[in-house]
Amino acid sequence: MKAEEIAEEFPVVDIDSPALEAVRMLAEHHLPGIVVLSTDGQLYAVLPASQVVRFIVPIYVQDDPSLAGVLAESMADRAAETLGGKTVRELLQQHQLTLPAANADDTIIEVAAIMGRLRSPLIAVMKEGKLHGVITASRLLAVALKCGLIDNGRFRAVGTRRPTALSA
Amino acid sequence: MKAEEIAEEFPVVDIDSPALEAVRMLAEHHLPGIVVLSTDGQLYAVLPASQVVRFIVPIYVQDDPSLAGVLAESMADRAAETLGGKTVRELLQQHQLTLPAANADDTIIEVAAIMGRLRSPLIAVMKEGKLHGVITASRLLAVALKCGLIDNGRFRAVGTRRPTALSA
Repeated sequence: MKAEEIAEEFPVVDIDSPALEAVRMLAEHHLPGIVVLSTDGQLYAVLPASQVVRFIVPIYVQDDPSLAGVLAESMADRAAETLGGKTVRELLQQHQLTLPAANADDTIIEVAAIMGRLRSPLIAVMKEGKLHGVITASRLLAVALKCGLIDNGRFRAVGTRRPTALSA
Repeated sequence: MKAEEIAEEFPVVDIDSPALEAVRMLAEHHLPGIVVLSTDGQLYAVLPASQVVRFIVPIYVQDDPSLAGVLAESMADRAAETLGGKTVRELLQQHQLTLPAANADDTIIEVAAIMGRLRSPLIAVMKEGKLHGVITASRLLAVALKCGLIDNGRFRAVGTRRPTALSA
């Protein structure tokens, strides 16, 4: 099975869009990250949700995490100043410019190797120079299970306790 | 709003369970990661889905990624050998033992600061020494939007193009 067959449709955001657009998409669609396109529609970066979260933390708390505890919730609206007026471009960090991308005809193994190496929650799949879709880590594992790449029979039941759903 | 109010119920997996159990949960529930409990039910680690994916890559390809391209799909069943018989414990890497955890009474800002610093797709919320639930990055952004922590009015519309849904 090739990357293009595994890839799913996914919302994207432009590099010069307000940061809030990326926040809304991540929040509303429960996404682990979002694909960022350049002004000419080319793949520019993948922005993990866990990194967008940093921008609701005031800069002085980012610099000194111990201050987070003393920051009253009522003062938390200052956090918005960190994101306010920013564009998606300003949310990107240098290390995120290594593109987590695969080619349409790459195998699952190749996609998994790229994802694991870059610790990216999703991989952009490119076809003829354009973004074809994306593959999340959970999607890749689901396909690997379904197509028998992970053979159930090869797993020994080692644990004695069954995994349990957490009761809140 | 406190961490315990934001936290959601989430499946967990035991450290000595077969790795396949973690793979199935991540795949079936579209999770960005999974909470791992020790044999005595204590929080042990958070295992990101993007790292589990590494284990469907044969070791000789992990060592030399250029081999992924020459690995025929028909040979891919060798990949299962990497996961076969492994337990969840064996999937964990040293750096994942820094626990991405927050206290029940932590503020959103504190949770965001921990998540951003550890680049973790989810945070475990502890209450009275026990796992109370988890907070994903997209959940945290949704709550921050809803409770006005990210004030829409503070965002300037900078981009001229609207973000578009990707047409596959």
